[in-house]
Amino acid sequence: MLIFANPHHAQHEGRQEMFRGRLVPCHETPSRLEHVMAELARRPVGPVQDPPPVERAVLERVHAPRYLDFLRTAWEEWVALDPANAALDALPSTWPVRGFRHDIEPSNFAARMGLYSYDAGTPLTAGTWVAAEAGAACALAAAQAVSGSRGTRSATALTRPPGHHAGFDFFGGYCFLNNAALAAQALRDAGAGRVAVLDVDYHHGNGTQSLFYGRPDVLTVSIHGDPRTEYPFFLGHADERGKGEGLGFNLNLPLPAGTGFGEWRAALQFALQQVREFAPEALVVALGVDTYEGDPISRFRLASDDYFQLGRDLASANLPTVFTLEGGYAVAAMGVNVVNVLEGFEGR
Amino acid sequence: MLIFANPHHAQHEGRQEMFRGRLVPCHETPSRLEHVMAELARRPVGPVQDPPPVERAVLERVHAPRYLDFLRTAWEEWVALDPANAALDALPSTWPVRGFRHDIEPSNFAARMGLYSYDAGTPLTAGTWVAAEAGAACALAAAQAVSGSRGTRSATALTRPPGHHAGFDFFGGYCFLNNAALAAQALRDAGAGRVAVLDVDYHHGNGTQSLFYGRPDVLTVSIHGDPRTEYPFFLGHADERGKGEGLGFNLNLPLPAGTGFGEWRAALQFALQQVREFAPEALVVALGVDTYEGDPISRFRLASDDYFQLGRDLASANLPTVFTLEGGYAVAAMGVNVVNVLEGFEGR
Repeated sequence: MLIFANPHHAQHEGRQEMFRGRLVPCHETPSRLEHVMAELARRPVGPVQDPPPVERAVLERVHAPRYLDFLRTAWEEWVALDPANAALDALPSTWPVRGFRHDIEPSNFAARMGLYSYDAGTPLTAGTWVAAEAGAACALAAAQAVSGSRGTRSATALTRPPGHHAGFDFFGGYCFLNNAALAAQALRDAGAGRVAVLDVDYHHGNGTQSLFYGRPDVLTVSIHGDPRTEYPFFLGHADERGKGEGLGFNLNLPLPAGTGFGEWRAALQFALQQVREFAPEALVVALGVDTYEGDPISRFRLASDDYFQLGRDLASANLPTVFTLEGGYAVAAMGVNVVNVLEGFEGR
Repeated sequence: MLIFANPHHAQHEGRQEMFRGRLVPCHETPSRLEHVMAELARRPVGPVQDPPPVERAVLERVHAPRYLDFLRTAWEEWVALDPANAALDALPSTWPVRGFRHDIEPSNFAARMGLYSYDAGTPLTAGTWVAAEAGAACALAAAQAVSGSRGTRSATALTRPPGHHAGFDFFGGYCFLNNAALAAQALRDAGAGRVAVLDVDYHHGNGTQSLFYGRPDVLTVSIHGDPRTEYPFFLGHADERGKGEGLGFNLNLPLPAGTGFGEWRAALQFALQQVREFAPEALVVALGVDTYEGDPISRFRLASDDYFQLGRDLASANLPTVFTLEGGYAVAAMGVNVVNVLEGFEGR
């Protein structure tokens, strides 16, 4: 398995997020990826590489140009407003809900922070763009690696910030660029007729779902905590099956808080059966390990050893496979859990 | 002029709001109303009364039942989550933007805080419901007072929290119940065939506009800072004229930052001309004085003496008139500015 690791991830290091009504230290930290890298050094599953640079046009296959422009220059704008801002992260504070307009881009910075986001828990920092862009490069390199008749069987984008909550023109849930969606689109653009995205993060892949909701060429499947009780709340219900040409090509499998590996694996096997029926030419796995029993902000009960089985089950789909790293906030266990998935996938 | 003053306003006392990316002390404070009451004691414009209690059914003429239920019990829920929460205000942190669903009400408290709001700057406190409900009672009492053939010419709801940013089922912009909209609806329900709402607050009356946007019986007019640069940003543009049967019955007059009284008054006179052409039977004035040159978060340049002229101009419409108190954050000048409007209206 090829591993593309984000060399710039640590430049995105948020200080505070709004979480359940308070400003608290960020859950999504550089140490998350450092633990994975350290565990991979102990148990290598394949060569670790830097990704080649990303082309702007490839990002625009998934994200709105004006959104990319905003992310790229947001930190400079934030600091230009007040030099003291350099000591703070930028956080949005007002949003265009309920039919408020999206068609006119305000010039006000706070307004654009809200226009391009959906929560107050995703700080934008000095290094966010560099880190997110290099993460997208990892996902795109992984997609290229598995594409075509001479492609490798699998590749992993080891990156943060994660991606699956980012949409066409919004960030949130610690995500800015949707790495899984970029990989899926790149696989399509490299010739795969159909691509499946399977999201096994604890949280619904609302960004990914919304990006492909009207399309029959990308099946999106997500197993996650019930949005009635779990973040991101407002999408991820079982009755969301796609729209228009995409009707039938989105599948949500929400599960209650407290779900253990037995029930969770039954959902996984159902998801993989749906993937097989779709008959894709490639698979993208949005790999969060916040399903872990020790996760501080999630409520499933997978044990570290269960992640070997997850890897084996994913391998059974027998498809060219790209992994993108998503959530997981039990930082010390994160490396073991991620590498267990990859080892299981590799049949060890 | 009859004055209905909110006896419970001080129970809503927020501690912190998210403002331009930081948690800062709230701008919308009990002292705002205390300054108005003190100035009214020096320069009485009419008897000051407590309002009678409000009927739930009357609130439901404007607001969603599930939203009212939420506001009424939110503080208890917040504290039940964690007793330590009693020392904090409740603030939302995630919102259903971009086609995220509103039809399923999550059980999660943080999710419902987001579902029923649009910003992170409007703390919900132990006394928010009591204060907001008593404020609505003031607005409704004022509407009753001017209704019918034996009604008084004018009445004022002296209250906070303000109301004009609150919508059918959302709070934001320091507002929870839309006092101006409740007054307008009560005037309609008391027999007025047509009612005009004129919003002279610095900020666009997005809640009021959205409540009446499809209706031809309530004309909504707002003079405010350009939403490209000024809060609440995502509504308030000049091309928003209403929809369906309401097309032509909404008018926005956005003005640039820095506007002084000369230009502002020209917009006011145009607004009053549109009101006259609509030929309403009653007028509601959403009275913010954050158009004042000393306002810390707004950028028009009205001087204290200009508010006498505003009052005289409003009186020239020669309509039964309800005032509801909205914004104004230059706290020490607030009493003088509000009472100047009321004295001007009374012809002094």
